[in-house]
Amino acid sequence: MNGNRFGRLFQVTTYGESHGDAMGVVVSGCPAGLELSEEDIQGDLDRRKPGQSMITTSRGEPDEVRIHSGVQDGYTTGTPIGMVIQNKDARSGKYEPFITAPRPSHGDFTYSAKFGTRNWGGGGRSSARETVNWVAAGAVAKKILGDHGIELKAHVNQIGDIEAPAVSFEEMLEHSEDNEVRCGHPETAERMRERIEQYQKEGDSIGGSVEFEARGVPRGLGAPRFDSVSARLGQAMMSVPAATAFEFGLGREARRYRGSERNEDWEFDEDGDPVPVGNDHGGIQGGITTGQPIRGEVTIHAPTSIPKTQTTVDWETREEKEIQVVGRHDPVLPPRGVPVVESMLALTIVDFLLLSGRANPDRMDGKPGEYDTDYHPRSPENVDE
Amino acid sequence: MNGNRFGRLFQVTTYGESHGDAMGVVVSGCPAGLELSEEDIQGDLDRRKPGQSMITTSRGEPDEVRIHSGVQDGYTTGTPIGMVIQNKDARSGKYEPFITAPRPSHGDFTYSAKFGTRNWGGGGRSSARETVNWVAAGAVAKKILGDHGIELKAHVNQIGDIEAPAVSFEEMLEHSEDNEVRCGHPETAERMRERIEQYQKEGDSIGGSVEFEARGVPRGLGAPRFDSVSARLGQAMMSVPAATAFEFGLGREARRYRGSERNEDWEFDEDGDPVPVGNDHGGIQGGITTGQPIRGEVTIHAPTSIPKTQTTVDWETREEKEIQVVGRHDPVLPPRGVPVVESMLALTIVDFLLLSGRANPDRMDGKPGEYDTDYHPRSPENVDE
Amino acid sequence: MNGNRFGRLFQVTTYGESHGDAMGVVVSGCPAGLELSEEDIQGDLDRRKPGQSMITTSRGEPDEVRIHSGVQDGYTTGTPIGMVIQNKDARSGKYEPFITAPRPSHGDFTYSAKFGTRNWGGGGRSSARETVNWVAAGAVAKKILGDHGIELKAHVNQIGDIEAPAVSFEEMLEHSEDNEVRCGHPETAERMRERIEQYQKEGDSIGGSVEFEARGVPRGLGAPRFDSVSARLGQAMMSVPAATAFEFGLGREARRYRGSERNEDWEFDEDGDPVPVGNDHGGIQGGITTGQPIRGEVTIHAPTSIPKTQTTVDWETREEKEIQVVGRHDPVLPPRGVPVVESMLALTIVDFLLLSGRANPDRMDGKPGEYDTDYHPRSPENVDE
Amino acid sequence: MNGNRFGRLFQVTTYGESHGDAMGVVVSGCPAGLELSEEDIQGDLDRRKPGQSMITTSRGEPDEVRIHSGVQDGYTTGTPIGMVIQNKDARSGKYEPFITAPRPSHGDFTYSAKFGTRNWGGGGRSSARETVNWVAAGAVAKKILGDHGIELKAHVNQIGDIEAPAVSFEEMLEHSEDNEVRCGHPETAERMRERIEQYQKEGDSIGGSVEFEARGVPRGLGAPRFDSVSARLGQAMMSVPAATAFEFGLGREARRYRGSERNEDWEFDEDGDPVPVGNDHGGIQGGITTGQPIRGEVTIHAPTSIPKTQTTVDWETREEKEIQVVGRHDPVLPPRGVPVVESMLALTIVDFLLLSGRANPDRMDGKPGEYDTDYHPRSPENVDE
Repeated sequence: MNGNRFGRLFQVTTYGESHGDAMGVVVSGCPAGLELSEEDIQGDLDRRKPGQSMITTSRGEPDEVRIHSGVQDGYTTGTPIGMVIQNKDARSGKYEPFITAPRPSHGDFTYSAKFGTRNWGGGGRSSARETVNWVAAGAVAKKILGDHGIELKAHVNQIGDIEAPAVSFEEMLEHSEDNEVRCGHPETAERMRERIEQYQKEGDSIGGSVEFEARGVPRGLGAPRFDSVSARLGQAMMSVPAATAFEFGLGREARRYRGSERNEDWEFDEDGDPVPVGNDHGGIQGGITTGQPIRGEVTIHAPTSIPKTQTTVDWETREEKEIQVVGRHDPVLPPRGVPVVESMLALTIVDFLLLSGRANPDRMDGKPGEYDTDYHPRSPENVDE
Repeated sequence: MNGNRFGRLFQVTTYGESHGDAMGVVVSGCPAGLELSEEDIQGDLDRRKPGQSMITTSRGEPDEVRIHSGVQDGYTTGTPIGMVIQNKDARSGKYEPFITAPRPSHGDFTYSAKFGTRNWGGGGRSSARETVNWVAAGAVAKKILGDHGIELKAHVNQIGDIEAPAVSFEEMLEHSEDNEVRCGHPETAERMRERIEQYQKEGDSIGGSVEFEARGVPRGLGAPRFDSVSARLGQAMMSVPAATAFEFGLGREARRYRGSERNEDWEFDEDGDPVPVGNDHGGIQGGITTGQPIRGEVTIHAPTSIPKTQTTVDWETREEKEIQVVGRHDPVLPPRGVPVVESMLALTIVDFLLLSGRANPDRMDGKPGEYDTDYHPRSPENVDE
Repeated sequence: MNGNRFGRLFQVTTYGESHGDAMGVVVSGCPAGLELSEEDIQGDLDRRKPGQSMITTSRGEPDEVRIHSGVQDGYTTGTPIGMVIQNKDARSGKYEPFITAPRPSHGDFTYSAKFGTRNWGGGGRSSARETVNWVAAGAVAKKILGDHGIELKAHVNQIGDIEAPAVSFEEMLEHSEDNEVRCGHPETAERMRERIEQYQKEGDSIGGSVEFEARGVPRGLGAPRFDSVSARLGQAMMSVPAATAFEFGLGREARRYRGSERNEDWEFDEDGDPVPVGNDHGGIQGGITTGQPIRGEVTIHAPTSIPKTQTTVDWETREEKEIQVVGRHDPVLPPRGVPVVESMLALTIVDFLLLSGRANPDRMDGKPGEYDTDYHPRSPENVDE
Repeated sequence: MNGNRFGRLFQVTTYGESHGDAMGVVVSGCPAGLELSEEDIQGDLDRRKPGQSMITTSRGEPDEVRIHSGVQDGYTTGTPIGMVIQNKDARSGKYEPFITAPRPSHGDFTYSAKFGTRNWGGGGRSSARETVNWVAAGAVAKKILGDHGIELKAHVNQIGDIEAPAVSFEEMLEHSEDNEVRCGHPETAERMRERIEQYQKEGDSIGGSVEFEARGVPRGLGAPRFDSVSARLGQAMMSVPAATAFEFGLGREARRYRGSERNEDWEFDEDGDPVPVGNDHGGIQGGITTGQPIRGEVTIHAPTSIPKTQTTVDWETREEKEIQVVGRHDPVLPPRGVPVVESMLALTIVDFLLLSGRANPDRMDGKPGEYDTDYHPRSPENVDE
């Protein structure tokens, strides 16, 4: 209800404002016995963090995660994992002019309309800083998925009018983390970077999109209708800050296809199991996975914080005024959005995996002994005297 | 979890298979005191029902709703509204060949992969027949919204390569129910109809899209992130059978816009309240409504049931086989999808309205007397002896 | 939120009023492949139904259940099971005097205070008639539990001042359905029956209690704290109409016990697994099952509908008045409450079983073929032509 | 599902283990504009904290709460309130013998049976230390209730065989915080204290009970059946560590009452509103509040950690062994349970209050201006430069 919970069995709960003390996230429902450390999480946080390149905000956040609970001697215990990331480099002063004069196309007005107030420093709760929590939770989800042979990756496939050609999953994996834009096609990445810098110099920003793919997802995950993989991904991806469109498979283009073009015959795969010929269906039929890769994309509009002069009104003084949203802002969102999209994808899939009974927090024989010593030996050296 | 529940406070729960006894829906959380009759619901059911024109399936379902509970003397009582719609014209025989040989791009395989079985008659639970429940529930939601000055409408804005020009809300209202295609632009509607008939003759089907708009939605509805209006609409619309894309505001096009182009300045409206100049934001900023119309669209792929010969495999006999999906099928989905999209829009908005406290099932003074007589006089003539 | 949903994965949704058209219940999350027929459900409905003896109301309801969906060829399909029970013998006339003059200790006033209105015929939604839905859903749950070796039973262990001595599970099974009171101790049952008839003659009613036990519940079901078996049973049992107390294990008496008296040592059972010596803990430690029987009881106050003259006020006429609640009412609730308590116990346990992954709606290998033919052979004779 | 979430609209999410880094709680859904500081919360934490008297454990925890988010310039913003309490005085060493040899009647075995492992230091997640989170959340709830004229209090009404006489709400308020036992009847408190010390000297512990009352709760709060105030309180109170019984109104005694004894006539109160004569119904009829005080009690068994020698088995070594649960433990739980029970009561009621629309997180006019300046003036001195 309150916008800070995601997941049915793998439950994420978040808190924190851009300029508050700390960001925090609680992950409940993580199976016991998963090897997990702060380092596992830090990698993805570093990919999302500000200040990593010239085309990201220069806010200096180390974004170091601290695990407060749910892990013992390096393994999860099945109980809630509490994580906290301190905010270190908040500078709220320059937001003061906007307290009662909303910045164009931000959440300033709507948050104040809903709550009668808002935390205005750095956009408060509406800031994309919140996604640091998602990435921390998503890193836990990715570890579970990895244990089940599920791999996923996202990359930037369009910035403004520059579109990347179709790339394979392997190309995404190989190239997308090698360039600042996080595009799986290096030459396009370079053109995207130039375009971004151009807009940046003009005091402007630009939109783009993130394409994602998950491989190794078992057949039969999902549910009908309101809980279909597509519906739950729809919610997940439309939660991403600045998302304006979600597509899977042929996406928006499906409107132009005939049934006979889009339909995919069935054949037997090497294991003798039925498999569709092609993946225009994006891995989902009837809301449930076919075993083919889940593939889709998210459109992310241009950052709304731009130095260009704009006009707003002050609801207190009742005056119109000219403003400039100065500060440390990203000129484009998709490059830092890549780990965010991956996290929402991972959180969505792991939840379906838990619901299917494949990755259950409970062990099934109700015998505590052997399992315990198996992966979690009693370690006297860890004993705190 | 099970795909048959939608809504947080305004809770819809459905059941039923295409060729089962009956479809049913329970609406919980509807405020007391709403005037409601079966006729209120029947209107929208008739718009969705099969056999209404040459471009819909000829299955003969009267789709008459029966209200079992929650209404007394023509007014809701605040307790669950149970509704049942009997299935009358199911002919399962022609589905027998597909029990173990999945039809291309249907849910046949995935349902069987998930459940180990499935109701195969007419597609069973995966059939779009399920949406009759949504439309019944949506009709209740629309009545509440109407009482709060919220009006909504959808229309078909594209079929295959035929796109309608932009139409106003008034045009949607005026024209979209006057033609079989439910397009708000009459000339385009005619071209769409011809194109549909052409594909139908070729034993094929075609995709399309539905555009929707809601007017009068108050400022400040929604919540941050996972419960934003856009995220919840994303889930709602991606639940629609055959949906492959959801967009709001500029949608997919937003990726091509600069910040300075997409950003909208603030001005004062005639009441002296801040209002954005323009509606490229589709009525939602920071996940919360601005008071501007909520506008978006859903892409719906071509019906997968087509008479053309296709290839599949039988997982029991281990043989490949040629099939034809004969039967009574729609050649295109958006025309009947219009009331379905409207229903999901209504269900999503009414839920936010309830969450905001604006349309609460509870009365606020805890005094039963006056209120009761106000809208719901004790009527001796209604007393059952 | 609306009082008509129970269960997290095994989800029950109900509707219906005492004098409405029909009662209805949707069961979502039932695993596929369960053999299920209307007869399976009818047995428990008959145990709950009115008019079964001199000490129950004489309202004549056949309470025949009709399954609308979720079952095919005698097996569940994993999709929602819709069930409807028609109301046949409602006589609302005698409730007319109470529309604005609440009956003492009923829900008349509070429902009107909450909703501003209420369905007043036969108590409407507040009537215990609603539990017919619970018993239908509970019968489905019991079948699943039976397949997992879990057996459960309840009986009446106190009526007024007449207490049954402690009885074993076997005695409950053997005796409790042989007498009208449903007490596992036949001699006490006879004394209870006499006492009930005495109060009945005096135009009065009497309270009592129901004791329950579940055997074969696996170790390790449950969760910490808010989702402990005890907390979820607390909610389940306090939902029972007229319940005023819930206890498990030593229950209220635990307050008088020393730690050294109540604590139970651990020993090895015949399989070499740790087992507590005794069951003062009622099968639950730390909110999670030990594998010992789950045992507890529910106190149910006297029926509030009594022929004796009582005083109330009319909020419309502003007058005090004398009333008699004539009609067909039970003089005591626990005998018909036994199947209701069993149902809530079954619904609670099956939900934990699903959450543990032991009885999952999804099959785990994602291969539709063999499993399908295993328990659910394609039956050409069932094909509807 | 995972035992760490409570509440529907006023949502509490917790984490933390007895000997982990920190305990944490996220409160979502708290209305904006509530004056709130760490001091408001600290008062209740101090009442729960260990080491406050001779009859509580001597573990030295300052239990200082730090608010990370959701509060700005001393007022809530409507967004999630993240709170963290560091663990300072954990000594895990003495728990080492119990890693594979469960302590009698603790959650050691069941947690290991469920998860295959557990955090064993100090009982880990199963420790009542978790309730520090509930008290922090409950303190927020109490502030909201106070703003709505709702007051609540609990006290210890029985320890072992020593029962307090009936006390009024005023006596609870006046006396219960003046003695170490937290009993509203001073003379009984003294006898209780002596009894506790006696058992403590004997290396033993003792059970007891906590009685609670809430005043000023509006009429019409609650819902039918599964969401009745009694059902939700049942879940809330049975979540309290070591709770074995929950009762409201006449509680367990109701089984002995005739209908004519327990039924309460209606009269008009001084405002001319219907009110029941008496409160044997404990403030709840038909699951919904009557406006009379909500009154009930919780039985809490004796602490299971006792120095007396007991027997257990080691599932690793396969040996039986004698153990002593030495450490710093409470000899009785109710005195520290009083603020815990109050918190669960407050959390339950505030949730119903939000659901009724009476205390909504959203403001209703959607106008940000005036409201903002009303209670939350822009304070330049708070601006961080």
